[in-house]
Amino acid sequence: MTSPALALAVLNDRTLFTLLDLAGTFAFAISGAVAARQRGLDGFGILVIAFTVACGGGVLRDLCLNVVPPAGLSDWRYLAVATLAAALTMASRGLVERLRHPVVLFDSLGLGLFAVTGAQKALAVGVDAEVAILLGMVTAVGGGVARDVLLNRVPVILQREIYASAALVGAAIETVGERLGRPSDALTWSALAACFALRYLSLRYRWNLPSYARDAEDTRPH
Amino acid sequence: MTSPALALAVLNDRTLFTLLDLAGTFAFAISGAVAARQRGLDGFGILVIAFTVACGGGVLRDLCLNVVPPAGLSDWRYLAVATLAAALTMASRGLVERLRHPVVLFDSLGLGLFAVTGAQKALAVGVDAEVAILLGMVTAVGGGVARDVLLNRVPVILQREIYASAALVGAAIETVGERLGRPSDALTWSALAACFALRYLSLRYRWNLPSYARDAEDTRPH
Amino acid sequence: MTSPALALAVLNDRTLFTLLDLAGTFAFAISGAVAARQRGLDGFGILVIAFTVACGGGVLRDLCLNVVPPAGLSDWRYLAVATLAAALTMASRGLVERLRHPVVLFDSLGLGLFAVTGAQKALAVGVDAEVAILLGMVTAVGGGVARDVLLNRVPVILQREIYASAALVGAAIETVGERLGRPSDALTWSALAACFALRYLSLRYRWNLPSYARDAEDTRPH
Repeated sequence: MTSPALALAVLNDRTLFTLLDLAGTFAFAISGAVAARQRGLDGFGILVIAFTVACGGGVLRDLCLNVVPPAGLSDWRYLAVATLAAALTMASRGLVERLRHPVVLFDSLGLGLFAVTGAQKALAVGVDAEVAILLGMVTAVGGGVARDVLLNRVPVILQREIYASAALVGAAIETVGERLGRPSDALTWSALAACFALRYLSLRYRWNLPSYARDAEDTRPH
Repeated sequence: MTSPALALAVLNDRTLFTLLDLAGTFAFAISGAVAARQRGLDGFGILVIAFTVACGGGVLRDLCLNVVPPAGLSDWRYLAVATLAAALTMASRGLVERLRHPVVLFDSLGLGLFAVTGAQKALAVGVDAEVAILLGMVTAVGGGVARDVLLNRVPVILQREIYASAALVGAAIETVGERLGRPSDALTWSALAACFALRYLSLRYRWNLPSYARDAEDTRPH
Repeated sequence: MTSPALALAVLNDRTLFTLLDLAGTFAFAISGAVAARQRGLDGFGILVIAFTVACGGGVLRDLCLNVVPPAGLSDWRYLAVATLAAALTMASRGLVERLRHPVVLFDSLGLGLFAVTGAQKALAVGVDAEVAILLGMVTAVGGGVARDVLLNRVPVILQREIYASAALVGAAIETVGERLGRPSDALTWSALAACFALRYLSLRYRWNLPSYARDAEDTRPH
């Protein structure tokens, strides 16, 4: 613990951890802001939902780990990143409309980032492997679920099989890897890439399905 | 505390407590999985909602009691029971369709089980009677509310009068009974039976009402 | 700390705090009960949603501050106030129907009250200014969001720009004022009035817009 090399490794680990966390926050905030704008919301509402979505999963994770106040509220950088994402989304009206499925890409990226960092944070607190894997998934899925619940539709995770399960895989790789004694950058990136690839490839595979129209139908009470 | 008889009683109490908790988890998971399948969801989505519904009320209770990580996440048996319930629901497509209202029966059973065990757990932590009664109801109602919110409909507890109130009665019987110095198996079963009977009889009484169609109508914005 | 004058000031401060908190609870409970009745719910369901809405934001705030069990559950006065509000709403069917927008007025009042008392409570626990401001807003907005999610519609805060932002202003005035060394009744009332005026004037300004019909349209999946 007193070795400078170890201190440096911990520092690097913390820096990577922080960067991943902020990148995930940004991706989810973009995802939330774009979905909010597609629903016709404006200004402050977009900012609120972007911030809520970006930090929703992390806040739930921190509450389950008894880390209070949750990092999403106490670290000004999360609020700054979410504000930036909301501002960019509001400014780039034309750009976002030209991109066909920007929400999906950012959502997939955020999914992997949050699953891995969520599991890392849980393990750092010292919980069991099962809790770390589940909270990694909760971190990744919580924000999207909050977004869909607030936008009054059945959450995406209930309609696309390879969503929560991709997060589960990412969190499981990170958790099992750390438990086997190899917490490393390579492990983190592998877990992140596995989750992202699983989610993104599943979207490509289903590309031709008339998905959203059927989803909208399915979400009506019957 | 050192008497073998008392230790045995505590053990029995814990065994009963655990069994009730797992049975309630199973009932709610079945209820969630069936509702998810009726909504047209598949595979992993059914499992996720079954687990979320089964543990949602308990997680909220544990967060309010500062019991972290919540038992629903840290005890592998809850995940195993929810997985079993989801698998049975997915496998027994024909059986579930032949049964007219399986969701309702399992939901009523889980309602009573969770109200009583939720109140017991709150009392074991040492909170006031009012908190124990309310958290018993929250434990019982939270899972169903989460299910309905995720399936994008007005929660059943807001549309059927004798739902949350039945849970309240069960939690109140258990809490008042324990406060009067009689924590016993008989008390637990009485509280459970009272809640279940109240809920189930109210459903029988309203059996002929065109209930679900009107509910679907009511849940539309107007 | 031992000066009688200071003790009296603290007592007065606590009394004001408690009164504001109960008044906010009452306003939100009325708002929840009226919205629930407009949706066609009856009896116990109205009570449950009134209580949930009244205490939802505060419970989330207390969980984020690690104050357990949350005051909304452990203080019988909150339950009593919510029950009173629900009973009045159920009794005054004609009165509520004659008033054009009673929900909005009570909601604006509760918004200001909860933002200020939420920030006060967070500061009393000793968190940073940013957390206090955000939790003040969460306290104010959480109940309304819970109401709208439970009633299956897109939350008002996402559709009316000057809602969460008004709460933010109120919480920020209180927080910055206390940080500058002036926790006083005048400060509290100023923060409350600023939030209420901002929210209420924005409603007057938009008075002629065909708001609710368009909102209902917007909340449908498309």
